[in-house]
Amino acid sequence: MEFESFLVSLGTSAVIFVVLMLLFTWLSRRPGNVSVYYPNRILKGMDPWEGSSLTRNPFAWIREAFTSTEQDVVKLSGVDTAVYFVFLSTVLGIFALSALLLLPTLLPLSATDNSLKTSRNVTDTTSNGTFSQLDNLSMANITRRSSRLWAFLGAVYWVSVVTYFMLWKAYKHVAALRAEALMSSEEVLPEQYAILVRDIPSPPNGETQKEFVDSYFREIYPETFYRSLVVTENSKINKIWENLEGYKKKLARAEAVFAATSNRPMNKTGLLGLVGERVDSIDYYTKLINESVAKLEAEQRTVLAEKQQTAAVVFFTDRVTAALAAQSLHCQMVDKWTVTEAPEPRQLIWENLKIKFFSRIVRQYLIYFLVAITILFYMIPIAFVSAITTLGNLQKALPFIKPIVEIAFIRTILQSYLPQIALIVFLAMLPKFLMFLSKSEGIPSQSHAIRAASGKYFYFSVLNVFIGVTLAGSLFDNLKALETKPNSIVTVLATSLPKNATFFLTYVALKFFVGYGLELSRIIPLIIFHLKKKYLCKTEAEVKEAWYPGDLSYATRVPSDMLILTITFCYSVIAPLILVFGVIYFGLGWLILRNQALKVYVPSYESYGRMWPHIHTRILAALFLFQLVMFGYLGAKLFVWATLLVPLIFISLIFGYVCRQKFYKGFEHTALEVACRGLKQRPDLEEVFRAYIPHSLSTHKGDDHQFKGAMSRYQDYAAISAA
Amino acid sequence: MEFESFLVSLGTSAVIFVVLMLLFTWLSRRPGNVSVYYPNRILKGMDPWEGSSLTRNPFAWIREAFTSTEQDVVKLSGVDTAVYFVFLSTVLGIFALSALLLLPTLLPLSATDNSLKTSRNVTDTTSNGTFSQLDNLSMANITRRSSRLWAFLGAVYWVSVVTYFMLWKAYKHVAALRAEALMSSEEVLPEQYAILVRDIPSPPNGETQKEFVDSYFREIYPETFYRSLVVTENSKINKIWENLEGYKKKLARAEAVFAATSNRPMNKTGLLGLVGERVDSIDYYTKLINESVAKLEAEQRTVLAEKQQTAAVVFFTDRVTAALAAQSLHCQMVDKWTVTEAPEPRQLIWENLKIKFFSRIVRQYLIYFLVAITILFYMIPIAFVSAITTLGNLQKALPFIKPIVEIAFIRTILQSYLPQIALIVFLAMLPKFLMFLSKSEGIPSQSHAIRAASGKYFYFSVLNVFIGVTLAGSLFDNLKALETKPNSIVTVLATSLPKNATFFLTYVALKFFVGYGLELSRIIPLIIFHLKKKYLCKTEAEVKEAWYPGDLSYATRVPSDMLILTITFCYSVIAPLILVFGVIYFGLGWLILRNQALKVYVPSYESYGRMWPHIHTRILAALFLFQLVMFGYLGAKLFVWATLLVPLIFISLIFGYVCRQKFYKGFEHTALEVACRGLKQRPDLEEVFRAYIPHSLSTHKGDDHQFKGAMSRYQDYAAISAA
Repeated sequence: MEFESFLVSLGTSAVIFVVLMLLFTWLSRRPGNVSVYYPNRILKGMDPWEGSSLTRNPFAWIREAFTSTEQDVVKLSGVDTAVYFVFLSTVLGIFALSALLLLPTLLPLSATDNSLKTSRNVTDTTSNGTFSQLDNLSMANITRRSSRLWAFLGAVYWVSVVTYFMLWKAYKHVAALRAEALMSSEEVLPEQYAILVRDIPSPPNGETQKEFVDSYFREIYPETFYRSLVVTENSKINKIWENLEGYKKKLARAEAVFAATSNRPMNKTGLLGLVGERVDSIDYYTKLINESVAKLEAEQRTVLAEKQQTAAVVFFTDRVTAALAAQSLHCQMVDKWTVTEAPEPRQLIWENLKIKFFSRIVRQYLIYFLVAITILFYMIPIAFVSAITTLGNLQKALPFIKPIVEIAFIRTILQSYLPQIALIVFLAMLPKFLMFLSKSEGIPSQSHAIRAASGKYFYFSVLNVFIGVTLAGSLFDNLKALETKPNSIVTVLATSLPKNATFFLTYVALKFFVGYGLELSRIIPLIIFHLKKKYLCKTEAEVKEAWYPGDLSYATRVPSDMLILTITFCYSVIAPLILVFGVIYFGLGWLILRNQALKVYVPSYESYGRMWPHIHTRILAALFLFQLVMFGYLGAKLFVWATLLVPLIFISLIFGYVCRQKFYKGFEHTALEVACRGLKQRPDLEEVFRAYIPHSLSTHKGDDHQFKGAMSRYQDYAAISAA
Repeated sequence: MEFESFLVSLGTSAVIFVVLMLLFTWLSRRPGNVSVYYPNRILKGMDPWEGSSLTRNPFAWIREAFTSTEQDVVKLSGVDTAVYFVFLSTVLGIFALSALLLLPTLLPLSATDNSLKTSRNVTDTTSNGTFSQLDNLSMANITRRSSRLWAFLGAVYWVSVVTYFMLWKAYKHVAALRAEALMSSEEVLPEQYAILVRDIPSPPNGETQKEFVDSYFREIYPETFYRSLVVTENSKINKIWENLEGYKKKLARAEAVFAATSNRPMNKTGLLGLVGERVDSIDYYTKLINESVAKLEAEQRTVLAEKQQTAAVVFFTDRVTAALAAQSLHCQMVDKWTVTEAPEPRQLIWENLKIKFFSRIVRQYLIYFLVAITILFYMIPIAFVSAITTLGNLQKALPFIKPIVEIAFIRTILQSYLPQIALIVFLAMLPKFLMFLSKSEGIPSQSHAIRAASGKYFYFSVLNVFIGVTLAGSLFDNLKALETKPNSIVTVLATSLPKNATFFLTYVALKFFVGYGLELSRIIPLIIFHLKKKYLCKTEAEVKEAWYPGDLSYATRVPSDMLILTITFCYSVIAPLILVFGVIYFGLGWLILRNQALKVYVPSYESYGRMWPHIHTRILAALFLFQLVMFGYLGAKLFVWATLLVPLIFISLIFGYVCRQKFYKGFEHTALEVACRGLKQRPDLEEVFRAYIPHSLSTHKGDDHQFKGAMSRYQDYAAISAA
């Protein structure tokens, strides 16, 4: 890519960013958009305009973001979000400190050498002929065996040491954050009083699962055992409950329409309301609701009596016992009565709880295998799909598209884009697919499944986007080199990196300018919200649903940051200019997401920073890849002292090991010194217990005066479980 | 080796065994030897002759051994010994069941083939020319590619399946044994009320270590914390205490001599009583004792005040809390306040307790590395020592031996035996060296160190004795084969196995006939005891010391059994006759050690079967080696279906993994359902606490009316620690 075209694309992105930001400034101050730009504040019951958002200064949000403290973030968006900012600022710190030393030393060294010019003149085979001003500033311009390479070797050490330092500091900080949140004396957190018990053996004759669990735990904890909640098979009752909720919404909608227009609304009973008999909506849904409530009551009785499963949530009267119990072996046979800390009620993946110990292990390995296959060979099914969906085949299967396809223009477009469309569809579905796989492992909590999916996505993106793009271009050139030296894959990767420097510079710039521009301006949610509000929403609840913002979605956000991180690491010494882009990406990211976290996104769960060990490991993995690549590239420059990088690679492994030993268990379990801090008020244990009862088995939220039947069910449940 | 010489050596061993057994029958019935043959019964306060040992029947001990139950063993010798018998009977079962199928099928198949005769006639290069009746019965006599090899393939499966079955049964049985012992309601076990805390951080200003520990645990366990015992630096005080004990023994001895002869005994004060001033012994030692007691008192005060270290034993008022606490993370930082179950008081390796978390990890890896080096290159230092200690060098260093060395006969002997002597000395010192290394890892308990040492010894013996002997002979023949195919080590090992079958048959026979003969007859302890009694012992205590039997010494016994097991496994299909020898070894071992366990050995610790997972893993490792070797040997026979063994090898790995998952944690920790069983009596917690105070800091045993000073020290300790 020529230097000019790089500048043009950079400029375009910058312009888009500025436009989006101005749009944001203008749109966010219009009262009609308040629920799109300040939903988190609204839901927290705060004044959205509090502070100076509406004053003259259009950049007040920047000042607000900078002046907000970590405690504000924890309060408004939870520990997990605060940990995400620790991640951003740590990486920002790493790149800023690296740039501080690397830019002033390495750029002049590169600029004043002339390997590229020389090699161009003598037509060196490794030069690919694209020689631009940017390449002059990269390590590609350093002559082989040059003693200048010492500076680049030192730079690798500098970047590594900075990373170790920042990561160590960050891990300590996050551990303290987690401890502080867990020892909070303000709030009663139900999950701190409960443990999750799985793999419960069959009860002895004549006892129910419930009685068995109670007697087992009462014997071990005679004084601190409170009660238990046996997990039940809820798929059928959940279905009934969802239907009921749906009918209630539709009834409310019909009533709202009736109130507005004074016409009793009608609807068809068939598929999607398009076919079937026309009926009066209000009568129809009221009838359906009454039927469902009756069904729900009947099913609740069945579920509680007959569908008890081999898992339970067990409650204790104090936090220390719950923390102790969650970490201790209860049964001599490890695959019975396995315990873990209880996840938050909203995080429980109810249907996974019954999966047995060894079945979980088998599933896990099976899914690791599947993911490895997906990562390595994902092109194969896509190619297969593309092959099946050639135009010829499509025409046979769907004859009605024939006239369209006959048009030459559309034909050309389709023929050339079908494979890409297959790829795009695959990539769009990938996070959902990985999430599905992670849940299938038998993981009991939402946040854990998200961590698992995020890890898988990281490896996918690094292997395919980064290594894939880098190698794709040069693999064919180097196929012969590979044949003679089959284990020089690191060298091939390393030597092909400089050629792609400009591509990745553009990629990073695009990501932060356009990506963060869209993020801040929220153009798409805004449009969707207004469309929905205008044409679909009739009730308050529906409007709220239309603007409800969701959470930060770690499962895709973290891996995509990680990809930028990996790219920046790997190029940091080869083309130090990328550090500037890395700093902008993480700096801008910090600023814009700070705004979003404080004002927009609503966390959907809280795992008290359990994401951090995961992030930490992957940052280290990226550093490790960087060190390997630099070892390969310095080797390719025939610099014999490249071997000095070998100890560094070992240091990375040792650093990772030490961090894991020192910190990890504190994230896996609740430390007792944390759990033992006293609470301000005595917890209402009944409340704690109630938090874990699934909606379909407990009372309904809000206006359900007419559904007392279901409510009384909950009392049944409480009565049964107290028995 | 010819068949006749094999029979001769077998016969000789058998005769030795019969002689030793007759000796035992005769000697054990003489009243003067009762303390050598029945020490365990004496120490347990039982009548040594109880039952029928003295009746006419000289083989009554066999009936006694057979009729004794596992409960008897547990009662008289502890769970660890009972677990050792589970090991013996499990292996016996494996070999007996294997023999049942393999002998009647494989022996005829081998005997009726004629590969060896043929290859001898056509001078095949792989035949080493020693052709005996025994080889005819081995797999070596099967023609290549013969379909008879199917039977041998099936035999590998049979042996493996039998092993899985027996190991699974045994693991379950041992887990139950352990659980039963731990939930015993009879005895108060001090270690069940305590945990070991290490890596305690520095106390805040103005607090002692002791106060810091107390306040930390009292906050977490306000109701169940009893008190703590801070570990102190005891090396100096232990020295003083040992001296004091020595003086007391010598005083008692002098008094005994005086009482017997009415002459006041005299001794010299210098080195070993050989040089220096002659003094009256009774006066001299009384003075020394008084001085030592004063020193002890002073040092006790110093130790308690100034030598508190970063470890402590913490006591709780009930077993469940102790079990819970031992398994739970106390500090957010994993390398602070680390906890483990407390070992028995007598097992504590006091000086290891202060070693820090990361220091322990570093030590561990360092020692693994050292052991690997020792196992792989142990011949090098020996060769080096031999080279240094050539006669020429010895003469220079020790001129006075010159006249002896001049004699031609002695010269020849020395020259030819010096290397062997170096080897023998090394092998004799090896267990002690491995034990020293294991203790240096920072392991806090004796039994754990023994397990660690035993594991190291197993790998040493399998690698060097078994693989070493097997390969040594054929390595030079096959050096060329190795050069062309560097990774065919398994094949080389496999093909050289049959040649050494007779050697190992003889080795196993020697082990059980001579080894168990000596074990049963106790000739050496008997002679030593009588010599000591006659010439050295003056007091009752000294006599008791002379016959005190010690324990079963797992650290060397288990690895040596394991070596026999490995040999038998590896030959079980190649030369099925070895199964007979294996059955005899483990059967005879069971019988003779049953006698020794019930009557002779006194266990020096109790780890409630924690040896078992260790034994289990090594049996599986031996099976794994067997499967690899058979894969190689069937391959060497050009039997293409040898690949059918690959799934079996994976099954072994999966079996090991499943066992570890299911059972291991139950051996690492005390399961709560076990710890929660009630005791018959309320434990005397003061007694529990006192059990952990080291001798040098507590009261003296027995007759110490004159050493009240030291006794009052203990009360100081109790007072300080109650503060």
